[in-house]
Order: sequence, then C-alpha cells, then structure tokens
Amino acid sequence: MSTLPFATLAQVRAALGDLPNPDHAALTQAQARNGQLTKPPGALGQLEDLGIWYASWRGAIQPKVEAPHIVVFAGNHGVAARGVSAFPADVTAQMVANFKAGGAAVNQIAASVGAAFDVHALSLDTPTADFSQGPAMTEDEVCAAISAGWQAVPAGCDLLVAGEMGIGNTTSAAAIATALYEGGAEAWTGRGTGLNDAALSLKTAVVAQGVAANPQAARDGLEALRCLGGREIAAMAGAILRARQLSIPVILDGFICCAAGATLEQVRPGALDHAVAGHISAEAAHGRLLTILQKAPLLTLDMRLGEGSGGALAIGVVQAAVRCLSGMATFGEAGVSGA
Amino acid sequence: MSTLPFATLAQVRAALGDLPNPDHAALTQAQARNGQLTKPPGALGQLEDLGIWYASWRGAIQPKVEAPHIVVFAGNHGVAARGVSAFPADVTAQMVANFKAGGAAVNQIAASVGAAFDVHALSLDTPTADFSQGPAMTEDEVCAAISAGWQAVPAGCDLLVAGEMGIGNTTSAAAIATALYEGGAEAWTGRGTGLNDAALSLKTAVVAQGVAANPQAARDGLEALRCLGGREIAAMAGAILRARQLSIPVILDGFICCAAGATLEQVRPGALDHAVAGHISAEAAHGRLLTILQKAPLLTLDMRLGEGSGGALAIGVVQAAVRCLSGMATFGEAGVSGA
Repeated sequence: MSTLPFATLAQVRAALGDLPNPDHAALTQAQARNGQLTKPPGALGQLEDLGIWYASWRGAIQPKVEAPHIVVFAGNHGVAARGVSAFPADVTAQMVANFKAGGAAVNQIAASVGAAFDVHALSLDTPTADFSQGPAMTEDEVCAAISAGWQAVPAGCDLLVAGEMGIGNTTSAAAIATALYEGGAEAWTGRGTGLNDAALSLKTAVVAQGVAANPQAARDGLEALRCLGGREIAAMAGAILRARQLSIPVILDGFICCAAGATLEQVRPGALDHAVAGHISAEAAHGRLLTILQKAPLLTLDMRLGEGSGGALAIGVVQAAVRCLSGMATFGEAGVSGA
Repeated sequence: MSTLPFATLAQVRAALGDLPNPDHAALTQAQARNGQLTKPPGALGQLEDLGIWYASWRGAIQPKVEAPHIVVFAGNHGVAARGVSAFPADVTAQMVANFKAGGAAVNQIAASVGAAFDVHALSLDTPTADFSQGPAMTEDEVCAAISAGWQAVPAGCDLLVAGEMGIGNTTSAAAIATALYEGGAEAWTGRGTGLNDAALSLKTAVVAQGVAANPQAARDGLEALRCLGGREIAAMAGAILRARQLSIPVILDGFICCAAGATLEQVRPGALDHAVAGHISAEAAHGRLLTILQKAPLLTLDMRLGEGSGGALAIGVVQAAVRCLSGMATFGEAGVSGA
C-alpha cells in the first residue's frame, strides 16, 4: 500500500486541511471584464457567474475549456443482496462493458460535448460488506478506493466530471446523507432506478438499519464514506479532492456524486468550492442535498441516470459560459453604446 | 415584390393552413427504440422526449444533428423613440456589426455548440412606425420581413434557432401578447434589458396605448405581427414557418422569439409543434407565454439577452438527446440485464 497516495483516513483528513483557493486577482479581473462585455449587465444570467468562477479557479481572466474529462467509477455493494435495487448486481459489470464499448448514455453525451471519457471498475468481484450489518469497508479498502479516484484524474484536464455505476448505490448515498444530516432515512431514501412502494419501504428500512449499525459514521464524512459508502463513491471523493489540489473545476452529477462530495464538505467546509452542480435529478434527495451544499443546479431536465450523465451534459453549459467571458467583445472594442 | 414568397398576409395564412406533420412511423419506432436502450425507463428525463420529438420531425429512427443553424434578425422600432429601452436605438446597428465581427454572446455560444451563424439586418435605417400611434407596418412591409425570414432558412440545416436584435423590441413583443391573450399590458410588460420603475410604467402605458390604437390586432396573430411587431419579429415568424415547411425542428429563444411564434400559433394551433422552448428567460412574461404555448423550457439559467442566445445554448441539449437516442446500445446489443 505504500505507493498509494492515501494509506489512512488521517492522511485524507490532512489533505483536506491543505487545499488551494481560487485566484482572487483573476476573480476580480474577470468580474471587471464581464462588466464590459457587449450585453446588458446580468443578461447572461447564471452563465456570468459560471464563467467568473471558472476563471478564478484557473487563474486566468480569459480562460478556455480545452480538455474536459469524464471519469466513471464502478463498484459493487453487499447491500444489493438485500433487494434494494430494481436491477440485479450483475448489471454493474455489464454496464462497465457497455461504457468501454461506447454504448451507454454518458458515452453519447461525452461525444456531444467533446469530452474525454474513461471508466474504472473497482474490485467488482469483491462487493463491499452489507453496511446494514456493520462497516461496508475497512480503512485499507476505503483508502484504496479514494486513492484510485485520486489517481484517475489526468493532470492536464481542465474540467472534471466524476460519475458512478453501482447497483445499490442510491441506498449507500441515502445512508451517507442520513448519517451526516438531519431528516432520517425517510427523507433521504428514494426510488433510485425505479422501485415500487414496497421496495421503497424495504430500502428505507435498510438505510435506517445501516445508520444504526454504524454509529461512528454519524456526522463524520470520512467514516460515513468508509462505513456506508462504496468503492465508486469513495473514488469519486478522491477524484474531487485531487481536482481541487490541481485547481481543476468540477461539475457534480446527481445524488450519489453529491453524497461523495458531501463527505469531503462535512470534514472541511468549502472543500467543494471548486465544484458546481451540473443538474438537479429527479431523485428528491438530490435537491435536498444541493440545498445543504448551497449549489444551484445548471440543468433541470429530470434526469436520474447517474454515470456522470447530468454533469457531462452541463459541460456544454460551462464551455459556453467560459467562451462568452473570454471571447466576447467589450463595449469599447465593438464600438457599442452602453446603457 | 413578385419574387417574394409572400406578397400578402392572406398568402401567409394559406401557408399556415398547409403544414407538414411529424412522421408517425418514425415516432412510434423511436419510442420503441428508446424503451430498449441501456438505461432504466425514463432515466434520461426530458432528453428522451426530446430525442423522440426530433426523430419524428426528421422521419428517422436514429437521426443525427449535423447542421444546426442560428439566424439572427435585426430591426429598428419607431416606438423606441418613446424611451422604452435603456439603450439608444443606434445600438441595433452597432450590435449587427458586433455579430458580423464575432464579438457577441451568441457568436461564442454558436461556436461552443458547433452551429453555423448568420445575421440579417432588415432596413435598419427605416424604423417601423411608432405603434402607439397606429400600425407599425404596412402589409407590404410585414410581408417583406416575413419573406426575408422565410428565405434565410438554409434548406440543408437540421436544427434552427431564430434570434433577434432590436432596441425596443420587448415593448413590441409585450404589445403582441397583450393583443393576443388575456392579462392586459401590466401582465406582459417587463424590464427588458434593465428598466427602472418609472421607465417600466412608461413602457406599460405605451404597450396599452399601442394595443388600443390597433384594434385590428386583437386576437389575430398576423395583424398583431403587422401592427405591433417589428421587422425582426416578422422575420422570425417567417423563419419558423419555413422550418416547418421543411420539417426542420426549431428551438425557440426568449420572449420576443416566442411572441413571433405565438402569432403563427394563434392563426393555426399546432403551428409550433416542430418547436421546443430552449429556455425560460428572466423576463417574467416569457414564462407566462410558454405556459400558453404549452412548451416546457430546456434551460433555466436566468438568461435575458435575446439574440438567440438561450436557444443557441439549448442546441447542445438537443444534440445530446439525439445522440443518446441514436447512439446508445440496446439491452440486447450490450448484453445488459433489464429490470
């Protein structure tokens, strides 16, 4: 394990204590530039803040998005054996093959926005332990998964989306949120990929049981990640952390991705300042979590697929926002009269 | 005038009576294909309906968006002399130069989504008459503008956004909506590019005055277009009509573009069936109009710029939706187990 970036959760905690911040000079200058562009003040709405935010993290007044990257992590969950998903656990590996062959939704969206894509399957033959009975992972296991995510971020990318595939992982995300926030299992458990009422009741009970069986996860992001998470969720957390260390802006995807991010934000408030919410999914808990994380979603298209798909689609919005900031003429350059 | 497609509004009315419909076989087959793609049913949310809608208009089960096109029309408004805009009327021509030089927001967004772009300036030196005193245009004038828009649609494009630039044109759009729908001038008049309270009161009064001065516009889309519209608004209506005749799907932009579309829909219910709403703008009347037109917006980013910018950004959403429908593997092809 000595070659991994993280061998202990204490090392992850230490890394979270030492994060770069946005470039305030670039922020101020980008704000000033935005005010001079040939449009009425504020007329590009959220695109304006988005461009300025991107500039501040890249330390450039007229940045470009040239290498967006989507990375999907896949993991299997012991809790899936409890019947919490509409799909069998075999689907995780089948979908990894589909991602590799280019047949999944996220492959099409990646091509559409011009983003690079790769997928990392994490020990699919060794599901995590059933968290309703105790911790899903040992410290070694969760650190290996966080490290895998950390290592999966290409240093040269300039916009990152981390996505996931894992049958049972909305159950895991619901348990993490229940452990970290108010509301109880009922507030955080949803229908995932399409449960009926009876299955939703079972899933809610399993979430509550898992939180009760792992008291050390309460209000502790990294323990929640270890005890209630899965390898793909831990890997997303590692990728989001690595992106921050490299000042690479991140677009969050749906509920599961945001639960991964929340484990970092809980330990270190502000750990997600380099991230925006790509969309708000149809899973109700996602909206609740975005409110807690204070992230306004870029897209509201009732997507609920995961695999990074909503974040991937929002790459197009960020690209356009950055192009407007960087490429538009100023009133002075264009000879346009101001208001 | 004999070379123009429309010399009279009666000819436009006749064209609206003879519109192609979507291909029902393609619709049915695209729906069936969507149900077999490697995702839980409905998990791509609005993207699924969007892809199927596009397929139905293109008459193809696995269509591609290969030639999206954004066309912006510019016109000047006599009513601008009443002080209804925060910007001077000279800005219309200055912005046309900016569009041609590639410096406006819509140029950046067009580049970002890979769309072709062009701009047509319509008799900028001859503003329409001040509609608060009587009809903005003669029948010859409005037909020339509708014809210009009709002729501006490239037959080879496969997705169209029509945008506008015209100082004073939210006033014109508000007057059209007031003439066509319930609510009165107060319901349809907004702050446009940034009016204060006093200027908003003046603008609302001018809208009410215009509707009163043009009784023939009440509940008649094409008369509203002639009496209360502007050349760029009439041109957008002509472009939207031409796209329908060519079975080219359209993405509507903001309030002014939708007011142009509404003049067609009022004459021929269903005339906008080949169009989706690209976004909902920060101009409150836009949301009200989308409700009447029964269009759910693809984007909610508080944009309020016009010039086709919101519709242009939504090209990326339509492209991704169509790629998902056409490019994803089916459960059978990918060997993925269904729910």
